Amino acid sequence: MITAPSSGVYAEARRRLDALAKPTGALGRLEDLAAWVAACQGSCPPRPLDRVRAVILAGDHGVSHGSVSAYPREITPVMVRAFVAGVAAANSLARQHGVALRVLDLGVDDDLEELPAEVSVYHLGPSEPIDQADALSAADCRQALRAGEAIAQDEISAGADLLIIGDMGIGNTTPAAALVAATFGLRAEEVVGRGSGVDDDRLRNKTQVISKALERLGQRAEDPLDRLAALGSADIAAGVGFLRTAARSGVPVLLDGVVALAEACVAEDLEPGVVAWCAAGHRSTEPAQQLALDKLGLEPVLDLGLRLGEGTGALTALPVLRSAVLLLVELALLSDLSPVS
Amino acid sequence: MITAPSSGVYAEARRRLDALAKPTGALGRLEDLAAWVAACQGSCPPRPLDRVRAVILAGDHGVSHGSVSAYPREITPVMVRAFVAGVAAANSLARQHGVALRVLDLGVDDDLEELPAEVSVYHLGPSEPIDQADALSAADCRQALRAGEAIAQDEISAGADLLIIGDMGIGNTTPAAALVAATFGLRAEEVVGRGSGVDDDRLRNKTQVISKALERLGQRAEDPLDRLAALGSADIAAGVGFLRTAARSGVPVLLDGVVALAEACVAEDLEPGVVAWCAAGHRSTEPAQQLALDKLGLEPVLDLGLRLGEGTGALTALPVLRSAVLLLVELALLSDLSPVS
Repeated sequence: MITAPSSGVYAEARRRLDALAKPTGALGRLEDLAAWVAACQGSCPPRPLDRVRAVILAGDHGVSHGSVSAYPREITPVMVRAFVAGVAAANSLARQHGVALRVLDLGVDDDLEELPAEVSVYHLGPSEPIDQADALSAADCRQALRAGEAIAQDEISAGADLLIIGDMGIGNTTPAAALVAATFGLRAEEVVGRGSGVDDDRLRNKTQVISKALERLGQRAEDPLDRLAALGSADIAAGVGFLRTAARSGVPVLLDGVVALAEACVAEDLEPGVVAWCAAGHRSTEPAQQLALDKLGLEPVLDLGLRLGEGTGALTALPVLRSAVLLLVELALLSDLSPVS
Repeated sequence: MITAPSSGVYAEARRRLDALAKPTGALGRLEDLAAWVAACQGSCPPRPLDRVRAVILAGDHGVSHGSVSAYPREITPVMVRAFVAGVAAANSLARQHGVALRVLDLGVDDDLEELPAEVSVYHLGPSEPIDQADALSAADCRQALRAGEAIAQDEISAGADLLIIGDMGIGNTTPAAALVAATFGLRAEEVVGRGSGVDDDRLRNKTQVISKALERLGQRAEDPLDRLAALGSADIAAGVGFLRTAARSGVPVLLDGVVALAEACVAEDLEPGVVAWCAAGHRSTEPAQQLALDKLGLEPVLDLGLRLGEGTGALTALPVLRSAVLLLVELALLSDLSPVS
């Protein structure tokens, strides 16, 4: 069980919010977010969220050999190269908000040989098709978890007030939806979504893949590590390890889309208390993401119909979270304002 | 009729958005916002929204002599002084986002003598209680409209890619709700809200004030200038003039809460086409604001339960609008990405 953010500091932050030069509660959800950040830092007023670091965990998925995505498997390495070149959506948003961003290849099906070696230093390999076999061996799953822990540790050592986790991998909404379904005992039809924009035929196929994977998993769904190895991938297992290490280290995380939510579901079962260190950046269009938000009790900052991944929903929400903190830090107390003339 | 943002450039922006290195439509509402900004600028890709200017139009309201607010009338000048001192919520958000912010006294019931003279250069005076008399004479209403036009012109001359309009005035949700009701033929019970947080007694009183004001207005509701003089105030009339000048000048505006929406309702009737130059920053907790958003066909960027005014909802939403534009400007085209290795 991971130590929770400080409830004492949370209460202190709420009292301070009530005393600021504004009507009680007038900042709405910003007040909840500000108090949560204060509780995570164990300090009221909290530090502004100046040092934000994001990682995109990339990997290929066995299911993308079949018809589960609107895009071919080969787009994964294309996008990894785009991140390194700084021309993808996540780069643009990270630049706008002064976020340190790096992309890591956990299992891209390409040698990426011309890229800097550190991109693939945690490379483990693509997953198996989850409707036919376990995505990872138990040993590979443990290794991917440890990779994610090391990645989080690197980010925290570099100095992080907040972490963001993004994803890249054609087909990755299929394992993510399957993990959400397996975590909460839902059916494939309830969790499946159109991901990058599949047509009706591919949606039916994707539903069947998830359904078969859940059937194959059977009772092993109860164990989070079995579930992760059976339905996940190296990048998703690394995300689980990343979230657990962030929470253990007391560093808050702003979650993105369905992949991050699937990782949070597994991480919470693996070690209860992880989700208390997480806020939800946005509500995506994926049913599995929305279901996971509700089941985990997370209310998203944004609801703009984003479904891009890459951490883009969290990155877009970041300035709102920063505003919440700055308002708690900077606003005058009503009692400090000059008396009426 | 005001010239609309360019439909040709809007279509061009949508085509470019479809060709960017992301699944079609994957940026959701950000794509709508980006295309709207491009259409307003008549240029695709658009300029980033670097130069954003906000004005807070402050004024007192005759209704605040009665029981319509949780706060006394004397708080209006206290908050004007807080804006000048830079310690209010709007200041904090403006600093975070590099927004030029000024506060203008259109009708504050205080001489504000120790403040810089330019704060009160457009001072006209507080409004009458709208349940008992017209808020402004027709002449004062026209003068306030002209003041708002001059204020907008000043901002535009200083260089503005986007304008934000905020409000400050104890009691101002009462005239704002009345204006929304009169514009759309709604009853007081449908538009009234708790504003700064009134109790049930004050809510009943506020409803009665709005109801009496609407009854007193009668058929004059059909004329936007009559409606504005009868139910508005100097600061609200200035807001109407501000919005009209921005739209006439082709400068987009990000709207805030119920006061800005009430101003937009009147401005659109005064000269159709104003609202096409407006986006909605947020959905507030005020029923009149939500009704006006729906009636004007505006979908807000944020929905965080804010109800502070001062332009804070629009200022909090600003970085999301900026992200939308930057993504349209900066993202690689899918066709430009390196071919698969």
